Amino acid sequence: MFETAELGRTIAKAEFKRIAPPLREELLKLQSDLHDSGRLQVILVIAGVDGGGKGETVSQLNEWLDPRWLVTRAYDTVTEEERQRPEYWRYWRDLPPRGRIGMFLSAWYSRPVLDRVYDVTDEATFLKQMEHIVRFERSLARDGALILKYWMHLGNEAQEHRLKSLEQDPLTKARVTERDWENWRHYDRFIGVAEQLITRTNKGVAPWLVVEGADPNYRAITVARALRDALERRLSAPEPERPPPPKPAPVDPGRNGKGKKKNAGQGPTGVSTDTLTVLKSLDMAQALDKPVYRKQLVEQQARLHRAHLRAKEAGMSSILVFEGPDAAGKGGAIRRVNQALDVRNYQVHGIAAPTDEEKAQHYLWRFWRLLSRAGHITIFDRSWYGRVLVERVEGFATDDEWRRSYGEINEFEEQLIDHGVVLLKFWIHITEDEQLARFKFREKTPHKRWKLTEEDWRNRGHWHDYETAVDDILQYTSTASAPWTLVEGNDKRFARVKVVRTFADRLEAALDRLMA
Amino acid sequence: MFETAELGRTIAKAEFKRIAPPLREELLKLQSDLHDSGRLQVILVIAGVDGGGKGETVSQLNEWLDPRWLVTRAYDTVTEEERQRPEYWRYWRDLPPRGRIGMFLSAWYSRPVLDRVYDVTDEATFLKQMEHIVRFERSLARDGALILKYWMHLGNEAQEHRLKSLEQDPLTKARVTERDWENWRHYDRFIGVAEQLITRTNKGVAPWLVVEGADPNYRAITVARALRDALERRLSAPEPERPPPPKPAPVDPGRNGKGKKKNAGQGPTGVSTDTLTVLKSLDMAQALDKPVYRKQLVEQQARLHRAHLRAKEAGMSSILVFEGPDAAGKGGAIRRVNQALDVRNYQVHGIAAPTDEEKAQHYLWRFWRLLSRAGHITIFDRSWYGRVLVERVEGFATDDEWRRSYGEINEFEEQLIDHGVVLLKFWIHITEDEQLARFKFREKTPHKRWKLTEEDWRNRGHWHDYETAVDDILQYTSTASAPWTLVEGNDKRFARVKVVRTFADRLEAALDRLMA
Repeated sequence: MFETAELGRTIAKAEFKRIAPPLREELLKLQSDLHDSGRLQVILVIAGVDGGGKGETVSQLNEWLDPRWLVTRAYDTVTEEERQRPEYWRYWRDLPPRGRIGMFLSAWYSRPVLDRVYDVTDEATFLKQMEHIVRFERSLARDGALILKYWMHLGNEAQEHRLKSLEQDPLTKARVTERDWENWRHYDRFIGVAEQLITRTNKGVAPWLVVEGADPNYRAITVARALRDALERRLSAPEPERPPPPKPAPVDPGRNGKGKKKNAGQGPTGVSTDTLTVLKSLDMAQALDKPVYRKQLVEQQARLHRAHLRAKEAGMSSILVFEGPDAAGKGGAIRRVNQALDVRNYQVHGIAAPTDEEKAQHYLWRFWRLLSRAGHITIFDRSWYGRVLVERVEGFATDDEWRRSYGEINEFEEQLIDHGVVLLKFWIHITEDEQLARFKFREKTPHKRWKLTEEDWRNRGHWHDYETAVDDILQYTSTASAPWTLVEGNDKRFARVKVVRTFADRLEAALDRLMA
Repeated sequence: MFETAELGRTIAKAEFKRIAPPLREELLKLQSDLHDSGRLQVILVIAGVDGGGKGETVSQLNEWLDPRWLVTRAYDTVTEEERQRPEYWRYWRDLPPRGRIGMFLSAWYSRPVLDRVYDVTDEATFLKQMEHIVRFERSLARDGALILKYWMHLGNEAQEHRLKSLEQDPLTKARVTERDWENWRHYDRFIGVAEQLITRTNKGVAPWLVVEGADPNYRAITVARALRDALERRLSAPEPERPPPPKPAPVDPGRNGKGKKKNAGQGPTGVSTDTLTVLKSLDMAQALDKPVYRKQLVEQQARLHRAHLRAKEAGMSSILVFEGPDAAGKGGAIRRVNQALDVRNYQVHGIAAPTDEEKAQHYLWRFWRLLSRAGHITIFDRSWYGRVLVERVEGFATDDEWRRSYGEINEFEEQLIDHGVVLLKFWIHITEDEQLARFKFREKTPHKRWKLTEEDWRNRGHWHDYETAVDDILQYTSTASAPWTLVEGNDKRFARVKVVRTFADRLEAALDRLMA
């Protein structure tokens, strides 16, 4: 694999002086276009052999490009704040917004390679890590990121020669560590792992370019040209076509009956779903009378309270997702959960329209940034499932966008769970009739009227589309480790007790597993 | 001071049940208006005596209000990431955006009080801390924040009684620590410090409300009413008047001569400044010829390189600010600095228009969030001085806004310096004629033309306003610990060497002081 990077290619000084200035101007111009267009984020990964010129390449690009629209990310040991979150949190939070270039030095490749070279991990673990990388990069690339990965290569002798010459220069001496020599002694092993790494992560949307690292001039020109070509190609490509923005569904004129009848029983694909949806099969008559409710709620809250104190002590985090139709009682259920918790320990995030910083990133970015420290409880009132619910139904996401989201959501949740997070997902459901009754009650009650908007009425027109969307969610994202809990919500008391009990159950089970 | 909070006021259960629901509805409605208007950020500080009901008050507000637009911030020991930045970084990054309520549990009051009670700090330090608090809160309040501070009080016996009863309840037992009892034994001392604290930080824009904490019902109603009244008052107040948005200055039609003559020599205040400005007194003829430049640049870069390695080792951070007219050569100077640094160690931030998340906060917030970890170098290409430069000159900030910014900037920089940051501020200057020549050169040179915009030409019309603004900056913000370095920039070589040398000088001096 690396034979082509040991050919001894060089560019003479005079030649370099002739080529470099116009190339640099081209890059600056492209970077300026990139910044003005604000269309895509550019992610450069610079990895490779020690002494292969990783740092020099980053320095060179920093010098050639406009450093204001460029971020360099190098990673040291994991900080306390990072350790308390899933592994990729540090990379997600460092992603450049669209319009900028982010240069990542080794980054997510560093640990998997070294751990494998020194046998800290076995092959299966390494392969799983490669799989995570592929999914991570694919998510970003599909969202429009331009990803280029440079692998700086040196032959065994060239590396030895390079390390020695670095050591001889007083200015660079400090950069060569015992670790570098240790890595050099593992050269063959390192190259073997690198080959696997490149093979497994070299995808069309995130390709590797193996660069011969021995000659600085050749290296610099090769890296810069590849960046120029990729930027040119992407910036001159037409904007991907998006379907026209959808028209809002008309507000149900009657407001007296159910949603639009013509849609009833028909999912967007035209398949009859009337008798099929999971939501329709729920026993919505379940209810609790007041005395039973009071007793059960207090009991379950006390259980939850004790479990959450133990979880806090153990540094175990929970994430709760609440979804459901408007007026289903999400807020009320969340409040009953919170009553059992120490207020220093939870945070509720109401998910509304994204900010512009969030819009300049992959749609999952805003959820990554909200992840709390270990031992905390993060509650999402609406969540990343918006992508496959409202964005799907209202047409805000393209077909292609929401369809690929299931896999991205699986990957995201898998990382949470691998990190030890207890993840609960509640769909609190009410029937169409019950929703109508609640809307009307709100309309009649002066101090509740402000809670009801035109949009709430409009959403009712999509009732059956939502049912289909929920079926898909359950099919694709209800897994053994991250199951959905369907909550029959026509009776608020029943729903609240079920939510609190489910959380207490899951937390106790997780604690038992941890202690076992 | 606390006599009025030991009167034994209570609200009976029946009375509470009558008062609470409508009060809660009012609060919810106000919170919804607050969120919709997006006008002001609300900051509640909940502090006071242990057992006085701080946690319960936060819980209660979390239960009564809509938790989606509410953030609760409690602070534990300082994390590694926090320790590496100035003390207030953790509070700045936690501020709620406009439209939301942030509840801060003890927060910036906690450490000063306890340190003083246990004699970790002397009175002078305590007073200085109070001064920081006042300035911090005033900055936020003047920017439109609504700040309410609740001090939960208990008498000595009431506190003892409360701690004992908490200990007897199995659910709350764990909350009483030995530390709480230790604090109780220092009751008189604690109250003495609290009195000082309240006296010194009770300002019209950020008032304290001392709340009798013994009866939960009384406490809950009192806290909620105060919040309701304050919200009502602020939300019903008319929007503060802003001057009409300024008209852009006409582009200099000739483009051949200097800026608009009618302004020449006249600052905005009408005082003749022609012969007075500091910038005019610079010796702009200073220059270096090429061989001297090459030699000096390499020498100074080598010095800087060595100093920065030592600084990195010592965990010493630097912040560099670059300001100056368009085309003054800021980018080129920054590049010469960066050449001497390890690319893993610096970050350049180009400061352009704020994002909407930034607009929803105090104007300094965006700079706080960019502060790097210890040992790093953060370079601002344009900076927080935009407030008193472009925003002042173009009329984007009101008179009142930019005038108060000097003090806020002093406070911000003082915190950086107190934290051990080496702060350098460069004004790279060129004359009007030199700028014109550079603009024309850019216009003529195909691959430079994109660097020149209409705005650059327009800014020239404000040349003399900028000179006046710079004089004010030097007068108000060039302090012994954070001096401005004026760089004569008509000769780029001279400017670059001066910048690199100055940075090396300052870094060496700081390291010497550190080692001494």
